[in-house]
Amino acid sequence: MRIPPGVSAENFAAAIAQFEQAVGKEWVFTSDEDMDLYKDDFSPFLGEPEERWASAAVAPTTVEEVQSIVRTANRYKVPLYPISTGRDLGYGGSAPAYSGCVVVDLKRMNRVLEVNEDNASCLVEPGVSYFDLYRYIEERGLKVWVDVPDPGWGSPVGNSLDRGGGYTRPQFRNHFDAHCGMEIVLPNGELMRTGMGALPGAKTWQQYKSGFGPWIDGMFSQSCYGIVTKMGFWLMPRPEAYLSASVLAGRRDDLYALVKVLNQLENGGITNGMPDLGSPLLGIMTIAEYAKSMQDLPQPPVDPELTALRDRAAAGRHEELEAYGQRKGLAYWTFDIKFYGPAKVIEAQWEYSKEQFSSIPGVRFRADPVIRLPLTPAQKLQVRWPEFGIPTLNMYSIGARSSTNPNPTHGHMWFSPIIPRDAQAVFEANEVFAAAARQFDLPVLRFSLPSCYWERAFIFIFGFPVTTDIKTNQKNRAAFYKLIETAAEHGWGEYRTAPAFQDAVMSTYSFNHHALLRFHETLKDAIDANGIMSPGRYGIWPKHLRASRDRAASGRAT
Amino acid sequence: MRIPPGVSAENFAAAIAQFEQAVGKEWVFTSDEDMDLYKDDFSPFLGEPEERWASAAVAPTTVEEVQSIVRTANRYKVPLYPISTGRDLGYGGSAPAYSGCVVVDLKRMNRVLEVNEDNASCLVEPGVSYFDLYRYIEERGLKVWVDVPDPGWGSPVGNSLDRGGGYTRPQFRNHFDAHCGMEIVLPNGELMRTGMGALPGAKTWQQYKSGFGPWIDGMFSQSCYGIVTKMGFWLMPRPEAYLSASVLAGRRDDLYALVKVLNQLENGGITNGMPDLGSPLLGIMTIAEYAKSMQDLPQPPVDPELTALRDRAAAGRHEELEAYGQRKGLAYWTFDIKFYGPAKVIEAQWEYSKEQFSSIPGVRFRADPVIRLPLTPAQKLQVRWPEFGIPTLNMYSIGARSSTNPNPTHGHMWFSPIIPRDAQAVFEANEVFAAAARQFDLPVLRFSLPSCYWERAFIFIFGFPVTTDIKTNQKNRAAFYKLIETAAEHGWGEYRTAPAFQDAVMSTYSFNHHALLRFHETLKDAIDANGIMSPGRYGIWPKHLRASRDRAASGRAT
Repeated sequence: MRIPPGVSAENFAAAIAQFEQAVGKEWVFTSDEDMDLYKDDFSPFLGEPEERWASAAVAPTTVEEVQSIVRTANRYKVPLYPISTGRDLGYGGSAPAYSGCVVVDLKRMNRVLEVNEDNASCLVEPGVSYFDLYRYIEERGLKVWVDVPDPGWGSPVGNSLDRGGGYTRPQFRNHFDAHCGMEIVLPNGELMRTGMGALPGAKTWQQYKSGFGPWIDGMFSQSCYGIVTKMGFWLMPRPEAYLSASVLAGRRDDLYALVKVLNQLENGGITNGMPDLGSPLLGIMTIAEYAKSMQDLPQPPVDPELTALRDRAAAGRHEELEAYGQRKGLAYWTFDIKFYGPAKVIEAQWEYSKEQFSSIPGVRFRADPVIRLPLTPAQKLQVRWPEFGIPTLNMYSIGARSSTNPNPTHGHMWFSPIIPRDAQAVFEANEVFAAAARQFDLPVLRFSLPSCYWERAFIFIFGFPVTTDIKTNQKNRAAFYKLIETAAEHGWGEYRTAPAFQDAVMSTYSFNHHALLRFHETLKDAIDANGIMSPGRYGIWPKHLRASRDRAASGRAT
Repeated sequence: MRIPPGVSAENFAAAIAQFEQAVGKEWVFTSDEDMDLYKDDFSPFLGEPEERWASAAVAPTTVEEVQSIVRTANRYKVPLYPISTGRDLGYGGSAPAYSGCVVVDLKRMNRVLEVNEDNASCLVEPGVSYFDLYRYIEERGLKVWVDVPDPGWGSPVGNSLDRGGGYTRPQFRNHFDAHCGMEIVLPNGELMRTGMGALPGAKTWQQYKSGFGPWIDGMFSQSCYGIVTKMGFWLMPRPEAYLSASVLAGRRDDLYALVKVLNQLENGGITNGMPDLGSPLLGIMTIAEYAKSMQDLPQPPVDPELTALRDRAAAGRHEELEAYGQRKGLAYWTFDIKFYGPAKVIEAQWEYSKEQFSSIPGVRFRADPVIRLPLTPAQKLQVRWPEFGIPTLNMYSIGARSSTNPNPTHGHMWFSPIIPRDAQAVFEANEVFAAAARQFDLPVLRFSLPSCYWERAFIFIFGFPVTTDIKTNQKNRAAFYKLIETAAEHGWGEYRTAPAFQDAVMSTYSFNHHALLRFHETLKDAIDANGIMSPGRYGIWPKHLRASRDRAASGRAT
């Protein structure tokens, strides 16, 4: 049994005993074998001293048990690290940001407390997974959809608090934005409800978000300020139909108009699913194509001429690639856009979208047949599930062995900067990241495309491999740190990252001598006097550990 | 010159001198005549000792001046009360929550810093009014709309921070939800930017909302935690067309299905303007009809038979009223629904909406012609402006003398509880509020209808008259306090209120011994050690004034 730093063996034993009293002996874990399960499966520190470890884990079933755990933690100054359920692979897993924390594993708090079909909302506990909620709704035949992320083993509470995203309409695929009302155990053990939930017997806890007075919900996302024990969400009424269609454009510079028109359509509410950009000519798959490729079907060989032209395009000579595309009927860009709604409405939306994209010379269109919902069992086997609110784990073979990937990696870490929603930013970011890759001796991608999980902004998502070789991991980490700095120099910041990089990313959000971080530290000291709640998460350290934060920051290039 | 309580004359004079040094002598106001302008024009305490007063006002033009003012205030423990521009009539005006505050009047910080047409966003200072922003956009011919409230003299910053609402698509008419990025002068004078703005040189400050780490923006709405000096908003791309249509139903109990279908359509994104409910049979105007009635056109006399039937319906006997409606072709309910988008799309949406409402026996439909946008000058004279993103002051003759209102009031105070989005809640709230009105000797309304400013929830908005008679005001205030309690007993809470009632409303958000308020107080003490920022706003008092809060609460029935 390992003990949290700064806690005496006696005190830790006393804390464990009180945890056992609170939740039952069988739900407190301290053996090395059990603790291995709380490590980050994709840790970039695999086998190194910095690899995060938990001293124990405790799995409560009730709010009162959570409160009891938090009070005990305060009594003995034992740091806690709450997790919900799922894996969070690539963003840190279930390992604490600060080694030695006791993981508060909320997986047993898995009750769906309410699904309101008429007003399309739900109230759930943190251990409810997307699978659980989907099953609950399906079993009752309720006409509401949950927006699900890749993959579905996570929980609506955990995923939204980490600001995860999905695939349906913008206000639902931004999972945190879709929330309405929270219940939180504060670091002092007190129970608080936000929004209308602060009014006892409130009838609109899941109907009106911001309640009365300052609206504090956002504080508890990507946060070290409390343990969320209940959370409400707005759901999407099951649409009548779905349409997926593609816009195909032939020239590199068509991306300018493509993005501009897409933004107008999406901001105008005319397309409403997640747009998905690909480039057949550059050999870059859309997310949907990538997901399909996971089925490990044999891939057609690439024409060597095309490979050569791609290299020349990457070096700035794209005319020949365009001409090749013209000859072979291959598009430079494909933009898949999706529509949820009544069949006649989405048909009209697609018609209008085509008119708007027609300003692009030579643009072509392709549309799948409109799918009436709900899906039949046969249809379910033919579609990509997340677009239909169905949780799945299909995507989680990322990096696994396949015909196209004979050398699987151990895992990956996501580098995810937000960049502007315009083509210029896409081209600029490609230049900057290609130069950085050369500089940091990383594999240079010919071109990368952003994703559209968030309305209004693009996000680049690069998967850095995690290996079992320490030297390789060290090199990749160093490059990751450098990329964070490079991105920041260009005004691009990450929206989320694994604990290994949270200090580094937070340090780029440095306006006015880190005013935001200093504000967070002021809040932290006020709310969590003993600094027991998720120390270090998202770069916010309690007072007694701030020196370690500074050490970590100064040591980050090593 | 009046001096803030607890501040010596010398210290106050020194503070005033420093304010003058910061912003120039001509922008610091202390005369009684000037201070009268910062009183609440609609104060329910008119001529009573509780009437809120400001000791001085100071009007900076730059962020540095705001910081200087805040530092001076800390030096001399002078309380501040920032306001943007506009009047906030009915919710407290520009008078401070705590008498003696120096009003920080931000009206001169009126720069539109950016409007991005391609991605439909803007960045503005707090003194920019809806008129200013509209004019800026019109002068440049930009194809974006600002969602405007009634009336347009307020500012996007101030209105959104007070959580005001408007009339277009749900994500824009919730003005706070439409914001993206803030700059704030904290109570200690430090400057902080939130969201991506915390990253120096950020390219996506107005494109991605929540930045990295805990998202704190909400804390600064309805708040005493800082002075917002810049704020970004997402704008609505100018739609191609607009359609306003009505659903008419004949029976009282049709409201159940009407609301249920409306919710499905609105939550499904199929209708997207603000739904507007009225009842010709009960004599209750929609908001649009009410606005039209402000033009003071002669009103047709009401059939005395109808009046009698309305009274009987109010007493529970609605069948005869329904029969009368049947005979005269008058609907029990009219639900106006609105559509913004491409003409062919909104026509399809209206077709689909009609199909859905057709489940209601005998339902009828009426649609105005589709209006192509932008409006022609001639069309501009025929439409209600806020639905078209055009600011106006037309609504601000509420309570004024007219042919239907020969006895104008001095003003009004809004009582605005949030109730569930279902017909049952509408009927129940009417019973409860009618009983309360009888009990508290208020005019009993036959029936009241909720508004749909917010998606997912209803809001009741009652205008209590403010008069020049102290006894009447006292009676109305006492009734207002009682209504807050009555509403809370039924699980309905106010979303906003004037300072006179902020302690009372906050005290109803009392879950777990006022855990939320105590959390706010913890934040307040940490962020604002000297308690100089907007003391008492939304019921949050700094440590040294909490006793007054308790006094105010205990004295509230008087």
